[in-house]
Amino acid sequence: MASPTGHTQPNPELIFETLNAHQRTAALKAAIELDVFTAIGEGANTPAALGKRCQAAERGVRILCDYLVIMGFLNKEAQRYSLTPDSAMFLDRRSPACMGSAASFLSSPELIGAFKNFAAVVRKGGSMLPGEGTTTPENPIWVEFARSMAPMQIPLAEAMAKILKADAGEKWKVLDIAAGHGMFGIALAKHNPNAEIYALDWPRVLDVATENAAKAGVAVRHHLIPGSAFEADFGSGYDLILLTNILHHFDPVMIELLLRKVRAALAPNGRAVTLDFIPNDDRVTPPRAASFSIIMLATTPDGDAYTFSEYQRMFRDAGFSSNELVSLGPAPHSLIISRK
Amino acid sequence: MASPTGHTQPNPELIFETLNAHQRTAALKAAIELDVFTAIGEGANTPAALGKRCQAAERGVRILCDYLVIMGFLNKEAQRYSLTPDSAMFLDRRSPACMGSAASFLSSPELIGAFKNFAAVVRKGGSMLPGEGTTTPENPIWVEFARSMAPMQIPLAEAMAKILKADAGEKWKVLDIAAGHGMFGIALAKHNPNAEIYALDWPRVLDVATENAAKAGVAVRHHLIPGSAFEADFGSGYDLILLTNILHHFDPVMIELLLRKVRAALAPNGRAVTLDFIPNDDRVTPPRAASFSIIMLATTPDGDAYTFSEYQRMFRDAGFSSNELVSLGPAPHSLIISRK
Repeated sequence: MASPTGHTQPNPELIFETLNAHQRTAALKAAIELDVFTAIGEGANTPAALGKRCQAAERGVRILCDYLVIMGFLNKEAQRYSLTPDSAMFLDRRSPACMGSAASFLSSPELIGAFKNFAAVVRKGGSMLPGEGTTTPENPIWVEFARSMAPMQIPLAEAMAKILKADAGEKWKVLDIAAGHGMFGIALAKHNPNAEIYALDWPRVLDVATENAAKAGVAVRHHLIPGSAFEADFGSGYDLILLTNILHHFDPVMIELLLRKVRAALAPNGRAVTLDFIPNDDRVTPPRAASFSIIMLATTPDGDAYTFSEYQRMFRDAGFSSNELVSLGPAPHSLIISRK
Repeated sequence: MASPTGHTQPNPELIFETLNAHQRTAALKAAIELDVFTAIGEGANTPAALGKRCQAAERGVRILCDYLVIMGFLNKEAQRYSLTPDSAMFLDRRSPACMGSAASFLSSPELIGAFKNFAAVVRKGGSMLPGEGTTTPENPIWVEFARSMAPMQIPLAEAMAKILKADAGEKWKVLDIAAGHGMFGIALAKHNPNAEIYALDWPRVLDVATENAAKAGVAVRHHLIPGSAFEADFGSGYDLILLTNILHHFDPVMIELLLRKVRAALAPNGRAVTLDFIPNDDRVTPPRAASFSIIMLATTPDGDAYTFSEYQRMFRDAGFSSNELVSLGPAPHSLIISRK
């Protein structure tokens, strides 16, 4: 409400919206599980037609779809629903860019459960999940991650391949640490026929990366190093060592330990390539990179979204000579390219 | 990313934001539980000071407070946090308008649990909570509601008292159905010394209303009718019958049944006054009123956020002669004033 002086009165709307925000996650997850977006894309665009197609109550889908309109995932005209450009591209199962599977990971009971008694997490200053949280050795969540998050990593992997000039075809020996789905190493192998990839991760996770390497037609240049990044023998002479979405799980002491090991395994002109959420020094911008911190608080003992200044210090302390920061916008991620 | 033609490329950000939205609820709830806003208001404005004051790990409060900045609940300058006008007014316990207790209700395990397997709720077309969901007789959640939601109802109750011209001091007999905290009837009694209030609700809930009536100094004009709105004997000759935040819990058949009973209890010139979330006919605007529907889907067998057209039909079918709609903006609620 505008006051006579043109100032806005204090308003509790943001508080209500935030206390109800969990409903947004629940509704989108349900819509993906019921395959509502594919059904609408195929023409079932009324509550009656959707109820039949999704085997759900008409009242249920009507209220769900109205809420999806309010959130911006659907349009509604003359009581009929239609997909937005975003939902047609990313939520209709018929689209090659569909990332509905990401919902299985991001809204999995383990990740949502990590926020359950969040005051206790803040008091402790770290995850209340058992063991080391998501960083517990062989945690099956990483198999789920590898299976469900691969589609949405492809644009990032392609951006990385372009920035590293994979197409130039130099002879590369590449170590892909915590490879997960393997998509980053695989993208380099696809663009560079002279790249040999060594993928490191837990054995069950490497099964997923191996499937993806075979699908991409690069299986013969995709080698496996099963185990922990902190314990496995990396080998040596790498031109590139990829650290994608891994460093944020650990504290600076552990990260420096890993970076020393990485540096030792690089060839003289080798580069470490870090892909991560890297906020500005204020730690509150840009919002998506900065808010990744809260996920690390909830799911790890002492991980964080580190700033570039903090990474620069860690890389320098581990002996690296230079670091270059490259934003991957519009994605919230950045790359750091560090020279031995 | 803007394309060469100036159109925006499809972007998965809204999907990520929504899949992570549950974290917003968890973080605000934790901040209220740890009393972070009061601590900052009192001058503990660094992670170290806050950790000490809130008995929490410095890392925990630092990451939590940065996230509160990103969400818009705090400001951050030179590594120090400060309250926004909204959080100073509504989240600092020292403010008379503090509504931190609303968090206990809105983010209670029962209300959050109602969204847990939301695909099943949509399939069924109604709440998966036991019994009749939140409308189960004597459900203790309404005692919690009455205790925690009273502060934020005061502005609405004051707006209602003004619209009904309570200050004119006419002799009023008022029935407050599903009185809860009792604040609506109590506001009328405060503004009109000639108003007698009859508050109807479950006995345990009426204990809370009675406390509030005593605090407001109107206990002698605040009478109790314990029981269900569908079963209790209302008495008769009421000038006003209040239906605040109750009709949305039921289907139109039950609502008409209740409205007939309400009409019979009104004096010849009496008015029924409904306060509720009333969306436009499109059911998707305004957003806060329209999105209330999803809460009724998750927590009741067949409640809804009904449109004014739907309420008009129900009131007319129950014998009322006219209905007037009054918005309570900036609040998301509206009033319907219906004449016998």
